[in-house]
Amino acid sequence: MTDPSKQTWFTEIFGDEGTSFGLEITEKLHEEQTQYQFLEVYDTKTFGKLMVLDGCVMLTSRDNFLYHEMMSHPALFTHPNPKKVAIIGGGDCGTLREVLKHPGVERCTQIDIDEKVTWASQQWFPELCDANDDPRAELLFDDGIAWVKNCAPGSMDVIIIDSTDPVGPAEGLFAVDFYKDCLKALKPEGLLVQQSESPLLHSDSIIKKIHLDMADAGFQQCHTLPFPQPVYPTGWWSCTMASPHGSVTHFRESDAAAKAFETQYYNLEIHRGALAMPEFMKRALSK
Amino acid sequence: MTDPSKQTWFTEIFGDEGTSFGLEITEKLHEEQTQYQFLEVYDTKTFGKLMVLDGCVMLTSRDNFLYHEMMSHPALFTHPNPKKVAIIGGGDCGTLREVLKHPGVERCTQIDIDEKVTWASQQWFPELCDANDDPRAELLFDDGIAWVKNCAPGSMDVIIIDSTDPVGPAEGLFAVDFYKDCLKALKPEGLLVQQSESPLLHSDSIIKKIHLDMADAGFQQCHTLPFPQPVYPTGWWSCTMASPHGSVTHFRESDAAAKAFETQYYNLEIHRGALAMPEFMKRALSK
Repeated sequence: MTDPSKQTWFTEIFGDEGTSFGLEITEKLHEEQTQYQFLEVYDTKTFGKLMVLDGCVMLTSRDNFLYHEMMSHPALFTHPNPKKVAIIGGGDCGTLREVLKHPGVERCTQIDIDEKVTWASQQWFPELCDANDDPRAELLFDDGIAWVKNCAPGSMDVIIIDSTDPVGPAEGLFAVDFYKDCLKALKPEGLLVQQSESPLLHSDSIIKKIHLDMADAGFQQCHTLPFPQPVYPTGWWSCTMASPHGSVTHFRESDAAAKAFETQYYNLEIHRGALAMPEFMKRALSK
Repeated sequence: MTDPSKQTWFTEIFGDEGTSFGLEITEKLHEEQTQYQFLEVYDTKTFGKLMVLDGCVMLTSRDNFLYHEMMSHPALFTHPNPKKVAIIGGGDCGTLREVLKHPGVERCTQIDIDEKVTWASQQWFPELCDANDDPRAELLFDDGIAWVKNCAPGSMDVIIIDSTDPVGPAEGLFAVDFYKDCLKALKPEGLLVQQSESPLLHSDSIIKKIHLDMADAGFQQCHTLPFPQPVYPTGWWSCTMASPHGSVTHFRESDAAAKAFETQYYNLEIHRGALAMPEFMKRALSK
């Protein structure tokens, strides 16, 4: 056991996966046991600030743009005219910020159960919170599953499930019943997006189950979009988009090309490219 | 210091980058100081076999397909009719195997300075060596820089630089003089491909320098294709393709769609997608 005062690395061990990932840290900025999880914030040597929940890397300043942009822009440019958006989880507010870059969005409601995550993000990731005061933003600290269940039927354009892994508190967000409630809350042309783990590690397991569960819940089409995410296991992550009726592989290409806001990763070609499915994933998902 | 007999993790620390990556190992299968580098082979819990050179992860059984397919198929489907291919480095023979899946290739010469790498691959990664006995394969253990310098001018269709990082023995493979020799060795419609490190970490440094050096050497067009590679730093890697005259962003799409061989990652859509450039890379490379 290293002397904690001399600890210079934060290392996350993915026991089941037999891999580990570490970041060199310069300072522990905060730790607390919230009502729901153990929250830590570090300063790192090369990745900016680092937020950790229950020992799992959540995000760093340097590379969170990949995840946040890919959880929002593909869905928002696939929906014909998204006005009402809900984010389940997403307490760091990075997805909220990306969603509100779309001028047509009239309301974006973020429902995270743990307000301490948002508090920590406001302290140490203020750049992710610069849309929190946007009059179109609504920040709720509540149970996302219950919120969706109680949502007015046919009221939402896009629901984004920006959750932790499908174990512990987020387990109920990877389930047929929850997807059914999402379907009910969505308008007919609505879209559901779920963070869906690593293509290399989880195509045969979690991603396949998400596809089956979304189909069971009544979604007609779903598609998984891979993208890089260095601080998550394998550095390769994905989101899965589902539609009650329409297509999730066609999008408003000219609007994406003419977007009036800055991104660091997303653009028209990246969106098209993210729709490409590696051979091994095609096989895993068609079995 | 852990007792080596009890060591259960192989962890590579990327000091300059402030990150580390580890794999849980079950057994050390081999170690030796070759004439050029320190070579280790491990069995891992979840990634199959692992080869390490001078402490750096080179490849694992589980995910090497990403790198080897992307170092070969995009270039071979971009060239109009590749017949003569050279691989500089590539001693594990994984790129050779992918190249020889193309029936039009008449000769593929692999020039790696260290025959022990190929020996180790034959022992522990036999699946990567299943084309070594192909009559079109030529395995040379020699200095790749000298080989290219002495190559008959205008004799090669594709040169693939499948090297380690631009430090130590491979440093000379990331240099204007070497690219000039490659240009001379290539036919007018030839293509050069170089492994080009991590988009997140190196767009502003190594990748930008490769682009400038290739242009200085006389290549008219070059383009970097990102792809996932979990066991390399950030899990996100790239190759850079360069052409003396023509385009490197158009390729034989119908041939790629109709390819008569199996791949695990590469296909038509993946190739198109890999040509997409993230916003931050566009900015870094246009400065």
